[in-house]
Amino acid sequence: MSERIVVIGGNAAGMTAASRAKRLDPGLDIQILELSHFISYSICGLPYYVSGDVASHRQLISFTPERLLRERGIRARLRTRVEEILPGRKKILCRNLEDGQEFEESYDRLVIATGYIPGVPRIEGVEGDRVLTVSRLEDGLRIRHEIEKNRVRHVAIVGAGYIGLMMAHATRKLGLDVTLVERERHVFSQVDEDISKLIEKELRANGVMLLLHETVERIDAEDRVKTDRGEFAAQLVLVDVGVRPNTRLAEKSNIACGLSGGIQVDERGQTSVYGIFAAGNCAETIHLVTKRPICSALGTTAARQGRVVGESLAGLRSSFGGTLETSVEKVFGLAIARTGLTLRQAFQAGLEADAVTISDRDRNAYYPGSRPLTIRLVFEKSGGRLLGGQLAGSELAAKRIDTLVTALTAGMSLSDLSQLDLAYAPPVGTLWDPIQIAANQGLKKL
Amino acid sequence: MSERIVVIGGNAAGMTAASRAKRLDPGLDIQILELSHFISYSICGLPYYVSGDVASHRQLISFTPERLLRERGIRARLRTRVEEILPGRKKILCRNLEDGQEFEESYDRLVIATGYIPGVPRIEGVEGDRVLTVSRLEDGLRIRHEIEKNRVRHVAIVGAGYIGLMMAHATRKLGLDVTLVERERHVFSQVDEDISKLIEKELRANGVMLLLHETVERIDAEDRVKTDRGEFAAQLVLVDVGVRPNTRLAEKSNIACGLSGGIQVDERGQTSVYGIFAAGNCAETIHLVTKRPICSALGTTAARQGRVVGESLAGLRSSFGGTLETSVEKVFGLAIARTGLTLRQAFQAGLEADAVTISDRDRNAYYPGSRPLTIRLVFEKSGGRLLGGQLAGSELAAKRIDTLVTALTAGMSLSDLSQLDLAYAPPVGTLWDPIQIAANQGLKKL
Repeated sequence: MSERIVVIGGNAAGMTAASRAKRLDPGLDIQILELSHFISYSICGLPYYVSGDVASHRQLISFTPERLLRERGIRARLRTRVEEILPGRKKILCRNLEDGQEFEESYDRLVIATGYIPGVPRIEGVEGDRVLTVSRLEDGLRIRHEIEKNRVRHVAIVGAGYIGLMMAHATRKLGLDVTLVERERHVFSQVDEDISKLIEKELRANGVMLLLHETVERIDAEDRVKTDRGEFAAQLVLVDVGVRPNTRLAEKSNIACGLSGGIQVDERGQTSVYGIFAAGNCAETIHLVTKRPICSALGTTAARQGRVVGESLAGLRSSFGGTLETSVEKVFGLAIARTGLTLRQAFQAGLEADAVTISDRDRNAYYPGSRPLTIRLVFEKSGGRLLGGQLAGSELAAKRIDTLVTALTAGMSLSDLSQLDLAYAPPVGTLWDPIQIAANQGLKKL
Repeated sequence: MSERIVVIGGNAAGMTAASRAKRLDPGLDIQILELSHFISYSICGLPYYVSGDVASHRQLISFTPERLLRERGIRARLRTRVEEILPGRKKILCRNLEDGQEFEESYDRLVIATGYIPGVPRIEGVEGDRVLTVSRLEDGLRIRHEIEKNRVRHVAIVGAGYIGLMMAHATRKLGLDVTLVERERHVFSQVDEDISKLIEKELRANGVMLLLHETVERIDAEDRVKTDRGEFAAQLVLVDVGVRPNTRLAEKSNIACGLSGGIQVDERGQTSVYGIFAAGNCAETIHLVTKRPICSALGTTAARQGRVVGESLAGLRSSFGGTLETSVEKVFGLAIARTGLTLRQAFQAGLEADAVTISDRDRNAYYPGSRPLTIRLVFEKSGGRLLGGQLAGSELAAKRIDTLVTALTAGMSLSDLSQLDLAYAPPVGTLWDPIQIAANQGLKKL
């Protein structure tokens, strides 16, 4: 009889693990159990569905269960909550959310890919009907529904993290009034202040009302949002105050979690219990610069972890090196990208670090359509080893962050960056790439 | 008295060397001697001047001699040909091309930055008035002049290298009929056949008449170009059959040249004669993959070499590592980029190599405006060390070559590439970057 693998969670990590394992070993019997109504969708695409750039949510879905079975031979059950793992009996207790019935499934090996849970702040009124978090495809459907059916004119967004920024962009694009409230002094703590300020400028230039260093204290049923400094109207409130790994199942079954809060795994993705793997945003991984365990909330990291677990399931000796927390996003006309450590994060990690920020152009100034490009490099004061990079500019420039990703992975220094034989032509760059200009500026600070 | 430095050649390498040296050591007395009418211009921008995208040739010029003296304290003499170097006397013999007068200049240290000379094929009629090569700003002025004044309707381009492709694009954009003749089976030998074919498709889709594996045999004064397979009309013929380092001066003064044909230099840029430096397209450098000396024809390499020579002049212990021959160009709507070795070059270097080519998208397929992106990776059969990369796609994708530049410089393998934490967001990329998809495909061939 073929070996039976159950994958809990049918998105980035779970889908990738299942698909990779089945492709490498078609004899495996793989079943995905998914809590929500959908598997295999692009959560990163959700803002573009909310904004209307993507017409139907179906465009975000790669595989329905039917297609997954037909094309890849993998079964998937939707609306199924796993209540408990019983490792001793190699069984899981499940509940069908449609009819409420409980049932058992047996497994030979198990993959936990339950992702993250959005945080909910302690704000009076946060449990109200029109207060939503954004972590699943259903949330996007709900937001569109609210906006279309309930005459939303003004949206409040609580928290200016990745999701908050994307939702500000999406709802503003629909022509709504948008107020974005961030309790810190600057938006998007995944970058340093220099870059945050560019995002803030772009938000304001596009009509977003930005309230910084301000805290939401109450959300009234009568469409009022009260902060520590004032109040405003909002018929819809979207909350993005961070996420935490969804480790409920693991904890219930005494599968070890680490200090980062995620499920501990070895480099192959196996948990503290033999035969039980974890991947994605519920699992720990290593930060490639600090070498410390962290929990990533990124789909890219989740998919890469899932791939390694899929290969482990198929008997390959793959391993996952870790993450740099690389991300990129486009807020109105501004693309922002980051990788590795910010200066703040470098200090928190106890490193003697410094940083440099330069502004140049994304293409030759005489070439039509050149746009500003800002590059920030974070580096070790002694020796100049690169610790992280950030950029803000046009979408033409966004993927240049990958040059820094590669340099970070290779352990390069500012001096190495300065010498790279980077590409130049007037329509796509400048003779001296801004990354090199920044590296040369940084070298002066060593 | 301050030390007297003479720089022969006032473009990428010479200008950079002079500027860098003066900035680091303002006490240096630096003079640039330039053969042509212009210093400090973007030769890479020339096609955009010819096409009219850049209205005036002055936009391509960063510094006039007046501005250079005023802002950087460096003197420059135009229209000055250096006839001979007399290292024993630390003098150079010069000729003023305006009045034909000879004169001497003395130097303490000298920089040769004489660039390259375009090759001229042995074709009957190639010396005619309307047959031009393209290597200086004057050539661009001449081309525009010919087209505007002499009722050019049809342009012939001989050779489909970098310059030939750019000129085909530029003249076609002016609405002219363009016939591009290449004697090899495919255009642009700096990439492998897979990528060449995409360029050929783009040329033809934009109305360029492309004659491959065909040789021009005669250019008639009566506007006829005869090949080994036929003939066609052309009122202007642009020739791009490669370039060679301009080493005339060095050879005359017994400064050593290497097997690559360029002036031999150490890593600081000094030639075989103490106190005489060389930089740019007349000088040798090391290919970072083969570790063999080569002569680059790229402005980026020239500028980087010039920077190192400038630092050497100022007493810093800088060194130039070498080149990957990274280049990028945009031919109509298609950006093409390359770095390191092609498969053909890898074989020529005696390496056991293989390659893989994949096609994907430059951004998520559901995001409006996604475009195809083709990636080719060349790698060692044993171990999968990356040897080179090529891409063809939108201008959004072009600078992704820098990821491969960085990976090559770090000596990464396909397996390393596969693990990189590259950036993803729907407007600027795909969850699995095409570079990683290519790396994973390549891994199957090891």
